[in-house]
Amino acid sequence: MNKIKIGLFGFGKTGRIVAQEIMQDKQIDFAWIVRRTKASNQKYASRLLGYERDATPIFSADQIGEDFFKKHFVDIIIDFSGVSGYKSYAVAPRLGIKVISAISKLDQAAIDTLKSYSEHSAVLYSPNITLGVNFLLVASQVLQSIAPHADIEIIEEHFRDKKGVSGTALKIAGILGLENTRHVNSVRVGGIVGKHEVIFGLPNQTIRLVHESISRGAFGQGALFAAKWLHDKPTGFYSMEQIISDMFKQNIPVY
Amino acid sequence: MNKIKIGLFGFGKTGRIVAQEIMQDKQIDFAWIVRRTKASNQKYASRLLGYERDATPIFSADQIGEDFFKKHFVDIIIDFSGVSGYKSYAVAPRLGIKVISAISKLDQAAIDTLKSYSEHSAVLYSPNITLGVNFLLVASQVLQSIAPHADIEIIEEHFRDKKGVSGTALKIAGILGLENTRHVNSVRVGGIVGKHEVIFGLPNQTIRLVHESISRGAFGQGALFAAKWLHDKPTGFYSMEQIISDMFKQNIPVY
Amino acid sequence: MNKIKIGLFGFGKTGRIVAQEIMQDKQIDFAWIVRRTKASNQKYASRLLGYERDATPIFSADQIGEDFFKKHFVDIIIDFSGVSGYKSYAVAPRLGIKVISAISKLDQAAIDTLKSYSEHSAVLYSPNITLGVNFLLVASQVLQSIAPHADIEIIEEHFRDKKGVSGTALKIAGILGLENTRHVNSVRVGGIVGKHEVIFGLPNQTIRLVHESISRGAFGQGALFAAKWLHDKPTGFYSMEQIISDMFKQNIPVY
Amino acid sequence: MNKIKIGLFGFGKTGRIVAQEIMQDKQIDFAWIVRRTKASNQKYASRLLGYERDATPIFSADQIGEDFFKKHFVDIIIDFSGVSGYKSYAVAPRLGIKVISAISKLDQAAIDTLKSYSEHSAVLYSPNITLGVNFLLVASQVLQSIAPHADIEIIEEHFRDKKGVSGTALKIAGILGLENTRHVNSVRVGGIVGKHEVIFGLPNQTIRLVHESISRGAFGQGALFAAKWLHDKPTGFYSMEQIISDMFKQNIPVY
Repeated sequence: MNKIKIGLFGFGKTGRIVAQEIMQDKQIDFAWIVRRTKASNQKYASRLLGYERDATPIFSADQIGEDFFKKHFVDIIIDFSGVSGYKSYAVAPRLGIKVISAISKLDQAAIDTLKSYSEHSAVLYSPNITLGVNFLLVASQVLQSIAPHADIEIIEEHFRDKKGVSGTALKIAGILGLENTRHVNSVRVGGIVGKHEVIFGLPNQTIRLVHESISRGAFGQGALFAAKWLHDKPTGFYSMEQIISDMFKQNIPVY
Repeated sequence: MNKIKIGLFGFGKTGRIVAQEIMQDKQIDFAWIVRRTKASNQKYASRLLGYERDATPIFSADQIGEDFFKKHFVDIIIDFSGVSGYKSYAVAPRLGIKVISAISKLDQAAIDTLKSYSEHSAVLYSPNITLGVNFLLVASQVLQSIAPHADIEIIEEHFRDKKGVSGTALKIAGILGLENTRHVNSVRVGGIVGKHEVIFGLPNQTIRLVHESISRGAFGQGALFAAKWLHDKPTGFYSMEQIISDMFKQNIPVY
Repeated sequence: MNKIKIGLFGFGKTGRIVAQEIMQDKQIDFAWIVRRTKASNQKYASRLLGYERDATPIFSADQIGEDFFKKHFVDIIIDFSGVSGYKSYAVAPRLGIKVISAISKLDQAAIDTLKSYSEHSAVLYSPNITLGVNFLLVASQVLQSIAPHADIEIIEEHFRDKKGVSGTALKIAGILGLENTRHVNSVRVGGIVGKHEVIFGLPNQTIRLVHESISRGAFGQGALFAAKWLHDKPTGFYSMEQIISDMFKQNIPVY
Repeated sequence: MNKIKIGLFGFGKTGRIVAQEIMQDKQIDFAWIVRRTKASNQKYASRLLGYERDATPIFSADQIGEDFFKKHFVDIIIDFSGVSGYKSYAVAPRLGIKVISAISKLDQAAIDTLKSYSEHSAVLYSPNITLGVNFLLVASQVLQSIAPHADIEIIEEHFRDKKGVSGTALKIAGILGLENTRHVNSVRVGGIVGKHEVIFGLPNQTIRLVHESISRGAFGQGALFAAKWLHDKPTGFYSMEQIISDMFKQNIPVY
C-alpha cells in the first residue's frame, strides 16, 4: 500500500500533539505543517518534536500562495488550526485534495463552506474526532432504540477552567432528544482531561457508557483513523459518526 | 393486540420476583405457575404476591400430566425453574407452545434437548436474559471490531458468597477471545447484586461499558422482552444476544 | 454482656426492613414495635417477617398510654416512624429510656423537642444514619482540610421519582461550604437505590469518595451500630457523625 | 516567610516533571538540579523547561565533590533520581540538610542508610509521595477499624506495559492485612496513568475510595507538600503517611 500523504494545518497546543501522533504512524507520509504565525527558526517539525532528522517542514500561513498545494501536493489536509483556518485551503479540494476538519466550534457559515468544498473532493468534518466519543454517540442511540423507556442522563467532567457545557455532551444530549439544561451534569474540578458518561436507568438495572480522555493524542489518533477511511472515498461530505455508524453495521455479530 | 398467554415454571427466589414482573405487565395474560414442590395452601400466585384477587393458579410439578398443556394452553412457557425443569414440558412444543429458558447453568444434554424442542416450535435459551448484559455482549464485540488494537479487561463484582467467576463474565471473555484467567477480575464483597464492566484501553483514551443489576426483577423484564419478540417468530432456536444483535442492526443511525 | 432491649417506632416501608435487621441481631432483645395504624390481625412482627415463632408484639400508636413505657420498659427507642412520631414517646426519656431518631426531614421544632428529651437521657438524631454516608461526611471534611485548594463537586444518583436534591447531598455540600445549586449534580434514572460521590480535583490527581446503597437495610444496620454505641452513654444530644468522628480519632494509625 | 531552598536529584522522565512543579512554586527557591549523566549543553533547567531566563543550574553527578553541599547549601534535597542516588548526598545530612526521598523501589539497605542519615537531620522517605494515595492509605485504615466486618478488595489500573502489581496496591493490601494474590486486581490496558480503588463491601452498602493520577506532576506536588511540612521538623525519620495521619488527627471535625 502506498503511504497516505498528509498536510497538517495548526501547530498550537493540540496541533503539536496531533503532529506527534501523525509522525509516528508508519502508514503516513507527513508532508508538511502550516501554522498561523511566522514559522519559528526551526524549519522542521521533526526537530521540534525531538527527532534527530529533518522531516516535515513548517510553513507559516502567509507563505501559502496560489500554487502552494500544487507544489506541495498531499492526499489529505488535516485541520486542527482554528475557526477560520478553512479559508487558507479553499483551493485544495479543486485539486482533488481531501479534507478532514476537526475544529470544535465552527459556525454555520464555515460548515457551509466545508460543504461547498465537498462538491470537489471528499470532506470530513467532526468537532470531536476521537473514536471513543463517536462510539458513545452511536451506541447511545442504539441503546435508546432498544430500551426506549430508559431514563437517560449525561455527566461530563473537565478541568476547572473549562467554560460552559462540553460541546460533546450537548451533541449527545441533542441526538438523544434530552433537554440539556435538565439532563446534562457538568463537573469542573482540578485537571481532569475529559470524561463523558451516559447513564441509562431502568427499574432493575443501569447501563453506563463511559469515555475518558487521557491525552489530546486521542484527537490525532481519531484524525488518522478518519484519514485511512477517507482516502479512497468519493467526493462527498462525511462525519466521524458516520464512519463509526458504518463500522457498527459491518461488525454486528451474526448468530 | 391480543395478550400473550404465559405459563411460568419456577417459583423459587428468582421465580417469585419474575412472577411479580409478569403479573404487572398489561400486555400479558399470566395463566399459571408450576412449582417443583407441592403447591402451598394458597392456590393463587396473586395472593402470595400481595394482590387482593384470585389470579394465576399455582400447580405443583407432580400435577402436570399428559394433557395439562392441552387443558391449560399458553402461547409461551417461561422457565426459571432449575437444571432439569425442561423435562416437565417436553410435550408442550409439539402443541405449538413456544419456550423461553433462562436457566443459567444448563449442561450440553439439556441444551441439546431444548434444540430438539425447537424443531416443533420457537425456543429461546439465554443463561443471562437481562437486556443490559446482552447489550454489553453485542456492543463489546462491535467495539472490538472497530478498535482491534484496544486492550480489554473485565471486572465483575458480586456479593461475597458467590462462588467462582461469573458465568456472564466468562461468556463476555469467551466471545472477545480473552483468556479468562488473565483478563477477568472478580471482586467479591458484601451484598453487591451484580456489576460487569468491560474496559477498552487505547493509548490516549479509555471506554468503559458497565452494567449494574439493582434487583432480580431485571430477569423478569428480560424474559418479558424476549416473550414479546418471540411470540410471532417461526420454529427455530434463538438467543437473547440474537434479539439484541438484530435490534442493533435495525437501529443503527443512518447519516 | 446483657442484651440491649429495643423498641421500634415505625413499621412502614423502611421500618419493616429495619425490623428485619434488628430481629437478626443476636446482641439485641427486640421488645416491641409501635406502628401508626391499628395493629394488623397479626400480633407478632416475627410472623409478618417470616419467622415461625411469636416474638416482638406490635402495638398501634393509639394503644400507647401513660404507663406503656413503664410496663414495656426498653433501653433504647429507635424511631423510623414519621415527622411527628417523636411526640408519642415524650415521656420515655424521663424514665431513662434512650432515643435514636432516624427521621430524615424533621423540622426545627421537632429537633428542639428531641434536644429537650436529651436533658433526661441520651438522645441521638441522624437524618441519614448509614455508616457509609457518615464516613463520607467526616472523611470529606478531613480531606478538605488537608487539600484546601482542591475543587469539590458532588454527584448524587437516585431513582427516577425522587423529588428534589437529596438531603444527604445538601448536608455534605453545606458542611464543605459548597453552594449547592452549583456544586451538587442530581441524576434521576430508573431504580437506583442511592449513590453519593464526592469528587476532589487537584491539577494532577482526583480523589473520589463514593457511597452506594444496596438496600434500606443499611438504615437498620446504622441504627443498630448507633444503639450499641449509645447504650452506655450519659445524658446528652448526639449524632451519627459524632460517633464516626470519634471513631476516626481513635483509629487513626500511629507511625 | 523565607523561601525554602531546594536541590533536586534526578532529571529523568519524572524528575523533569517534578522540576516543572518546583519551579512554579513561589514559596520555593529552587537552587539546583543534579542529574546522573553529564549536564547537557544547556546549563540552566529554566531554559530546558521553557522559561526565558537563567535559573536553577544543572550539575552532573560526577561534579558533586566533598564541598558541593557547602558551596551550594540548601534546606532540603528532594530525590527522584534512582535506586542508588542516595549515596551521592551522604554528606548532606551532617551539614543539616534535610532529605526527601521519593524513590519507589529502594531495597532494605538503602532504607537503612536513609535511616542512618536521619540521625543527623530530618529525613522523609515515601515510595509514593502523592497526597491522594496517602489519603487513601490512612482513610482505608480508619474505615477498616470502623467497619471491621466489611469485605475489602483493591482494583488498580495502569498502562499496558506496567510490570507486576503496583507497589502502592501492595502497600495498601499489606497495611489492611489483605492477601494480595486474592484481593488485589490488576488491570493493564492502553495508556491509563494510574488508578487505585479500595472497595469496602457491607451487606447493604458499598464504600469506594478512589485515586486517579492525571499526570506525574502529582509527585512533584507531593514532594513540595512534604517539603513545607518537613522544613521546620527536628532530626528524625518520617513518611508521607505520617504527615497525612497527623493532619487527619488535627482536622477531624469536632461536634
